[in-house]
Formats: sequence, structure tokens, C-alpha cells
Amino acid sequence: MKNIFAELISIGDEILYGQTLDTNSHWISAELDKIGVKVKRKVTIADTEEAILEAFEEAEKNADIILITGGLGPTKDDLTKPCLAKYFDSEMYLNEEILQTLKERFAKRGRTLNKLNKGQAELPKKCEVVFNQYGTAPGMWFNKGRKVFVSMPGVPKEMKYMMQDTVLPKLKEQFQMPVIIHQMVKTSGVPESELAEKLEDWENNLPKEIKLAYLPGLKQVKLRLTAIGADENRLKKLISAEVEKLDELIGKYVFATEDINHAEAVGELLKSKGLTIACAESCTGGYLSKLITENAGSSAYYQGTVIPYHNELKIKVLGVQQETIEKFGAVSEQTVIEMAENVRQLMHADIGVATSGIAGPSGGTEEKPVGTVWVALADGENTQTKLFNFPFDREGNIDITANSVLNLVRQTLSAK
Amino acid sequence: MKNIFAELISIGDEILYGQTLDTNSHWISAELDKIGVKVKRKVTIADTEEAILEAFEEAEKNADIILITGGLGPTKDDLTKPCLAKYFDSEMYLNEEILQTLKERFAKRGRTLNKLNKGQAELPKKCEVVFNQYGTAPGMWFNKGRKVFVSMPGVPKEMKYMMQDTVLPKLKEQFQMPVIIHQMVKTSGVPESELAEKLEDWENNLPKEIKLAYLPGLKQVKLRLTAIGADENRLKKLISAEVEKLDELIGKYVFATEDINHAEAVGELLKSKGLTIACAESCTGGYLSKLITENAGSSAYYQGTVIPYHNELKIKVLGVQQETIEKFGAVSEQTVIEMAENVRQLMHADIGVATSGIAGPSGGTEEKPVGTVWVALADGENTQTKLFNFPFDREGNIDITANSVLNLVRQTLSAK
Repeated sequence: MKNIFAELISIGDEILYGQTLDTNSHWISAELDKIGVKVKRKVTIADTEEAILEAFEEAEKNADIILITGGLGPTKDDLTKPCLAKYFDSEMYLNEEILQTLKERFAKRGRTLNKLNKGQAELPKKCEVVFNQYGTAPGMWFNKGRKVFVSMPGVPKEMKYMMQDTVLPKLKEQFQMPVIIHQMVKTSGVPESELAEKLEDWENNLPKEIKLAYLPGLKQVKLRLTAIGADENRLKKLISAEVEKLDELIGKYVFATEDINHAEAVGELLKSKGLTIACAESCTGGYLSKLITENAGSSAYYQGTVIPYHNELKIKVLGVQQETIEKFGAVSEQTVIEMAENVRQLMHADIGVATSGIAGPSGGTEEKPVGTVWVALADGENTQTKLFNFPFDREGNIDITANSVLNLVRQTLSAK
Repeated sequence: MKNIFAELISIGDEILYGQTLDTNSHWISAELDKIGVKVKRKVTIADTEEAILEAFEEAEKNADIILITGGLGPTKDDLTKPCLAKYFDSEMYLNEEILQTLKERFAKRGRTLNKLNKGQAELPKKCEVVFNQYGTAPGMWFNKGRKVFVSMPGVPKEMKYMMQDTVLPKLKEQFQMPVIIHQMVKTSGVPESELAEKLEDWENNLPKEIKLAYLPGLKQVKLRLTAIGADENRLKKLISAEVEKLDELIGKYVFATEDINHAEAVGELLKSKGLTIACAESCTGGYLSKLITENAGSSAYYQGTVIPYHNELKIKVLGVQQETIEKFGAVSEQTVIEMAENVRQLMHADIGVATSGIAGPSGGTEEKPVGTVWVALADGENTQTKLFNFPFDREGNIDITANSVLNLVRQTLSAK
């Protein structure tokens, strides 16, 4: 089967000048990789007609699929659309359907369209419209011979919607792709090097159709198994046999084999057991609750949170005893125990969890340096605690603390 | 003064396949921007000789300075060095000094050099060595006519050291740079198109030395003013005159003219007025608190939060009256008023804020569709409320709600 090549073009001075980090092309690359399209080159260029037209021309020589992001805003420094019209030698027209959608969206928010917004409904005649669920700039799909050009907005959310809703399915229709099956195995609570050691033998004996990639991160390591071939059923069987072997080898660290996040996996586990959870957050400052509640349906198992950032409030709002804090300090096993047990009762939950630590950059002492974190889990019968010494910056320490609580909940519930 | 242009080349399959996010070129862009070098284009290419040589050739046509990262590892899929030797038609030699440094570093860790490691001390004769403090691959500086090529490793820490220690100072010596001043003006609470309309006249009358760019996002729009010229004092005066005009035109939306985030700007404002804040979050589920507490030093103005996700807890923990919820519902002006006033008292804060809404995707009704959000701010004298109808998905609705509360706090405090 012939390789299918893509070139990605990001348009925007803000990327060239280092003000915006281009995460779009990274995300697009990974998505194309999943369907078997090889990205051959990525180019980032300025908002000038010369640079844009030259990039189109070069990309057309290099690749079968050209995906373009950015430069579709309503202001006059956004040049992608006029350049596309010029490149494809296509007149512009007013798309009444898009205009109508824009009008309705604006009306809902009690606003009327101005001249600039109306301009967004004007499109080159030769393009097919790619629907934009989240913004006012429509995407554009052009066929040129056997090649495809797609232009999408630079706002990541809008681009991602278009890719998933329209572009990826349409590309799969139009090009003949190999069968590729990806299986993600997500782990938490174990470092990459330890995982690699545990999996060395298994990895050396993988069938030749399966490739393994480690996708390491601060709080979780993902394993991606990729099977490439022609016979879908055979590949699926191969993959699921390997996932079973992984379960035996590292099952206690695996929180998901589907596309769900850590908090969602914990939520599903709570729901399946008919249990609810409440949080008392100090050093995580709402981040743990945010991870739980960003998942739709979390109200089925999440009761609520108290974040008492100061000692007086730990005492007053959460009922931690004054003596406990005076004797052991706010960052102590004794304090997180009371926080977890009390928030469980206050919020009528089955499980109460608590965090207290020094996220940094300041606030550390010799005895309790930055990164010292206590967490606790109370279930009405037992209260467990864990002490961590994390080496990260404020953001990293907060992130890994919240995930450590999720780990604790998951491992406790899985053992029951 | 003549513009000085740079082109950045990132080499590596792992970037093209979406496994590694390229943060190097983002960082380099920002550093070059600061010294007045314009990045004209960034290119990411595969580890193949053909792609690398072609990229060198194109870059030499486009730019005065070509900065290359990646492909300098010891293994055979790292091709940058042989390609440079070929491109500059230069023989290789063994650099004894580098070999010695490598031997010493390895000895310190109790290891000896293998053949692959020794190869790292071999360099094209035509290059000047760029010292690598943190790794085994030296950087290489080539002059070709008036143009400069620099090759650096892809490991961010090694690349950054080389840039700061050698490359940036040497570039400043070798090229005559213009003076460039950037000024960011960050706004929140106003869409890009509305902003553009308000600023149309102003934009058309900008002095020719100043360029304006819109950097839009879901919750905030940033304006970037860039002044380029020869006389630093004159440019600074020009910029600050325009910032003053912006303050008159759109001052109520501007939350920062420095490099700080929205919650940080609100925090600074609270601190300067000696005030503290507490939050009662329902639909935002901890996200607002997370935005506040992710900033170091937030404990100076942040008291705490209650997240009562269910009606019974709004009543029990936060003291909202049962009748209020029964009569008006949890998503209502009356409920957010009580939430804001009560959390202010409970947490001993000067200002209490509250959110209650339907983030989605489910939970909407005809009367209160998904996106309906009430927020409130109580300062002990007055309690203000706002009703929103946001059109986004769960994540977007949560994000913009939290930012709307920050807006409300900022505008209230600024008016005082």
C-alpha cells in the first residue's frame, strides 16, 4: 500500500514571535498517525500573502494532504481565506446558510452581526464548508486533483472539533489507508523506568505486527500498542491478547484501557459501587475537585469540597481540632486524617479524601521542604494516609498530588 | 535599518509523528524576538538526508540566521552532523579537547566511552564549537558569507544553555539589530470582533512604527503592540501613548499590560487593596479556586472555597435557605446571592463570589438551557449578580464562567 503524506502549515506571527506555543500541529500529527497518514513536514509561516502562497505551492509538491491552521479571524491581519481564493483561483460568495447560523448565534447572546462578522460568511466558491461548532470562522475543504487542502481556525477547540467531526472521517473515505489499531493502556502511580523493567520480557516477545510506544508524563505513563496490517479481526485479537498479558503483569497500575482520564476512571469505579466522594483540599486548592467535576455526570458520585486555605478555616469550617494543628502543623498526618474524616461527614459522602502540603515555591522548612505532601482517605471504617516528597514546581506538585489521591481511591476501591 | 531574518529547523521523526511537542522553537522564537531578529519561518522535518539538505538550502535563501535543533544524538538515525559536513563540504576531524571533556564526564560517573560516544567528539573542520554544558553532543556554528548556521541538540536544557551562553551573544556581535519593543495588552470579557470594532479608528491611525496584532482566545483577547525602529526612547514614548489611548477606549476590559494571567491580575488588585476573597462554586466545580491558587502567593488574598454540588449541601454547608432553592431553583439569582453572601461570612473574607449554572452536556431545560449561568459578588455592602447564556461545551462553559467571575471582581474593585 502506498504511503500517504501530509504537510501541516501553521499560519500566524504570534507563533513565529514565540508568543503562542503551537500545540495544534502536535495534536494533528498524532491524529494523522493514528489513521496511518505520515506527516512529512510542518511549516510555520507569517501572516503575509507571499509566505502563505509560497507555502501552499511547496506543500502541494510534497504531500497528498495539506492541513492549514490559523489566519481565519475576522480582522484584516487574517489573510488565509483571501490567499486560498487566489491560490485556487476562486471567486468569493456569501454563504447564506452560514450567515443565518451566525445571526442566530449572535441573537442568542443578544448581539447583532457587525461588518467584520458578516465577512466570515463569505467563502471561495470552490471550497466545501467544514462546519465550526464553536466559533464564527468556517473551515474550508478544497480538492485539487487527488490532493486535499483543508483550512481550519487556529483556536485549538474549533480545529479539534472540525478534525474529528469532518476532516478525519472524510480523509479516511477519500484515501486508502492501512488498517491500524491503537490500544492505549494508561497507568498511574509507577515511574517509566520501573514499568519498562517489569515489561522487558513481554516487550521482547511482542508479535511483529505490534509496535509499543511509551508516552511518559509527570503523573501517568501511557503505553500505546499499535497493530498495523490488512486483516482487522486478526489485529484485534492480537492486541487483546497482549492487553490481557499486561493486566497480569501491571494490572494494579492500569487505570484505563479506553479514552478516559484518570478522574473519569475513578468516577466510573465509584458509580459501579454506588459510592460517593467528598474532598478537603488544602495544597491542591481546587485542582482535585476540578479534575473530578470536569467530567460530565460527576454529580452521580461527587458530593462536594471544602478548601480551607488557612488554619483558622480548617478549624472553623472543617472542624479540625485546634490542638491538632498547633501540635503537628497543618501539613501533618494528624491534620489530613481529621480533614478527610470530617469532610466525609459534612458532605454526607461515603469516602472523604484530603490533601495538605507545601506546593511551593516558598513555604518550605528544613523539616518540611517544598514538595512535602500528606494525603488521606477515610471510608467510615478505616482512614489511610500517604506521605510524599515531590521534586516538582508548584504546578507539578499540585498536579501529582491530585493524581495521587485518585490513585489512592482507585486502589482502595479495586481491593474491595 | 535592514531586517534580520531567521529560520528555525527542527529535525526529528518524534515531532512529526506527534509524540514529542516541540517547545524548542517556541522558546527560541521568543528569545530572537527580544533581540530584534524576525523569525520568518519554522520547519520541522524528518531524520532523512534528503529532507535535511533541502531544508538547509531553502533556509539559506530565506534567512540570515539558521538555527537547527535535533538529530545530534550518538545513534545512526541522527543525521544532522553528517548532513552539515556535506552541506558545507567539510572534512571531519576528532576534536581532542571535546574528547577529553567527554572522557572526564564519563569517568566521573564511573563509565568509559564507547565507540558511539567517541563519535560525538568528531566535528566538521569548518565549524566553531558551541560548548554543551549539559550533554555529550557539541553545538556547531558555521559562517557562510554573511549568513550563520547553528546546530544544537534537541534536548531543551542543552539547547537553552547554548543559546544563552554562546549563540545569542555572538549573534548580537555579528549583526546590527534594530530596537524592538513589544507591549501586551490583555483583555477579558469582550469578544474579538467587538473589540476590533471599538478600535477600528484607533488602529487606522497608529504611527507607522507600531504594528498591532490580535491574539484571540475563548476567554480573553490579547492585543500586541510592536514598535520597531532605531531610537529606543522614542519608541517607548510612542508605545506608552498608544497604551494610554487604549485605556480610554477599552480600559474596562484590560486586565494586564504585563506577563501575568487573569487570576494573578485580580490577585494583585485584591492585595493592593488589602482585601481577601472566598468562593462558593457550583457549576465551576473547583476550577475558579484552581485558577486563583495556582499562583504562588495567593494565600495572601485567598481564604477558601466551598463546593456544595447538591442542593442539600448548599443548604447544610453554605446555609442557603431551603425555601430559596425550592422556589427559585439552584440555578437562580436568589441562590447565588445567598451563596456569595454566606461564603463571605463563613470564610471570613471581604469578598464572596458564587457560581451556579448548567455546564452541560445534560441538565438543561427549556427554561434554563445548558449554558445558563448565574454569578454573584458580595462585598458586605452590596451584592451584584450577572446572568449569562454561554454557547460552549462543558469545559468551555466552566472556563468562561470562572473568568467572568474574575472579570466581575476586577471591574468592581477598579471602580472603587
